[in-house]
Amino acid sequence: MKIRIGIFGYGNLGRGVEAAIRQNKDMELAAVFTRRDPATVKLQTAGVPVYHADKALKMKNEIDVMILCGGSATDLPEQTPQLAAHFNVVDSFDTHARIPEHFANVDRAARAAKKIGIISVGWDPGMFSLNRLMASAILPEGEEYTFWGKGVSQGHSDAIRRVEGVADGKQYTVPVESALAAVRSGTAPVLTTREKHTRECYVVAKEGADKVRIEEEIKSMPNYFADYDTTVHFISQEELNEKHSGIPHGGFVIRSGKTGLNREHNHIIEYSLKLDSNPEFTASVIVAYARAAYRLAAEGQKGCKTVLDVPPSYISAVAPAVLRKNLL
Amino acid sequence: MKIRIGIFGYGNLGRGVEAAIRQNKDMELAAVFTRRDPATVKLQTAGVPVYHADKALKMKNEIDVMILCGGSATDLPEQTPQLAAHFNVVDSFDTHARIPEHFANVDRAARAAKKIGIISVGWDPGMFSLNRLMASAILPEGEEYTFWGKGVSQGHSDAIRRVEGVADGKQYTVPVESALAAVRSGTAPVLTTREKHTRECYVVAKEGADKVRIEEEIKSMPNYFADYDTTVHFISQEELNEKHSGIPHGGFVIRSGKTGLNREHNHIIEYSLKLDSNPEFTASVIVAYARAAYRLAAEGQKGCKTVLDVPPSYISAVAPAVLRKNLL
Repeated sequence: MKIRIGIFGYGNLGRGVEAAIRQNKDMELAAVFTRRDPATVKLQTAGVPVYHADKALKMKNEIDVMILCGGSATDLPEQTPQLAAHFNVVDSFDTHARIPEHFANVDRAARAAKKIGIISVGWDPGMFSLNRLMASAILPEGEEYTFWGKGVSQGHSDAIRRVEGVADGKQYTVPVESALAAVRSGTAPVLTTREKHTRECYVVAKEGADKVRIEEEIKSMPNYFADYDTTVHFISQEELNEKHSGIPHGGFVIRSGKTGLNREHNHIIEYSLKLDSNPEFTASVIVAYARAAYRLAAEGQKGCKTVLDVPPSYISAVAPAVLRKNLL
Repeated sequence: MKIRIGIFGYGNLGRGVEAAIRQNKDMELAAVFTRRDPATVKLQTAGVPVYHADKALKMKNEIDVMILCGGSATDLPEQTPQLAAHFNVVDSFDTHARIPEHFANVDRAARAAKKIGIISVGWDPGMFSLNRLMASAILPEGEEYTFWGKGVSQGHSDAIRRVEGVADGKQYTVPVESALAAVRSGTAPVLTTREKHTRECYVVAKEGADKVRIEEEIKSMPNYFADYDTTVHFISQEELNEKHSGIPHGGFVIRSGKTGLNREHNHIIEYSLKLDSNPEFTASVIVAYARAAYRLAAEGQKGCKTVLDVPPSYISAVAPAVLRKNLL
């Protein structure tokens, strides 16, 4: 019997989950829930029903794990606790500052319902968090660094598009190679925001717009660009569509730490991702943790968990004895 | 109250564990056990007793976790099950092919005694195994690669020193940069043994020995060198002592995998280590998992575990709520 997955919200992430389920033979997509008119939603998987979000509770007995694919700003803070009262759930809540509050809300709902909720699954938060934890536990005396990119930042791309005279735009966050090299050398450098990342903007200006003013306005935008070395390239809409339509991302979590009676030995632990599709990779992580949610619930566990709490073998479809034989 | 650690076997690894305990404020070294005459063993930590290995059971109530620091060939297969009948234990058993058998033996002893045994802890097996598991669960359709080095292989260094006419020697395993680059490019290349690593030997010849014959004998040695491009450098004992006395190591675990309805997106997950001291890093991993063994036992769990089974937060001294707040 396969693990029956529900997808709640069918945007980029929901479509990524749909694709990822096909790569996991022990799972099947049971239903998709949307706030749009279900008749307007066309899935990529034949024979799977689409229901309005309001109808989710009617499917309680047909779904083992509900994967929430809404946004962190307003959707997930409400939806995850609500659905955790009826389903085992997994979400990718990524508003770092609000994770403790979200955890508490999901934990309360899931405990009362004897369900499992795994929150903030993906790569950051997610795999990057897990690597920060493990590296800091192994090398307690050390420094930790996170670099993001090269990749598309949705928030910064949105900020560009809000500038007057901008028709379209895309922003790449780029880690500075020399900063990465300095960290890897083991010297544990102190790095400013400007020294760690640059920002590259590809901007389509509206006809007759003042490009000098647009560039100046982008580069001086507080929080988003002012603290970085920012480059602005004006290109045509055609070039933007052709060369910048993907959603690549990635990054590096590096810990540089010392061991030895006199701290005479240095060690570098590095975890990195190079992703062609940010939403599809995030979806792939979520689907693996949906398996863990199913297993934890089957054991009778309940409440909220994060990637920091889940035994690694629970995310794999392979039996523990086979994992030990082949991977250890 | 601190976690009281015993060290069983006081070689390079045991000394590494001793140093690592000092970096973890929630732990203390309770005693060291040796098969040598305890009077001849001088610790680096004041006030800690050294006992003969035969006396270990007398310290049952003074030790929360016993860390086994013997060798995998003959020590650990006997010692870990024996001690797991009385103590929570952690070892770094690294004979890959015999892990299932060792697991079964330790599991039997630990279950009967209601103790926890965590085996094969370190970096390979250990952190590399964990990363293979996670990456393969996240990207089920993909290829996995492990590269080792640059680092000293003890087994290959020993093999060199057994060649007639060799006074001393050290061997470095070196990953081939172009092979690493090919893997990182996402093309999922098929690589032969020779294409992945080279072997660099630093050899001190005895006075009057035939260097041509030594070089030929090393390069053609089956299993150890014949399948690799091997370089032999003859140097003086002084130079060997001066430049090659360290025990650095490291390596790379890389998974290249596809997602998307048509597998149109590629992703690279890479975990790498660059270690100044192989035994001290291994010891640091072991000490973190000793904390997990203590906690699992305190919860009433029993039996044998590996790094694949342990919830990541159990290895950290930091409270779960703080981890969520700061690392997620």
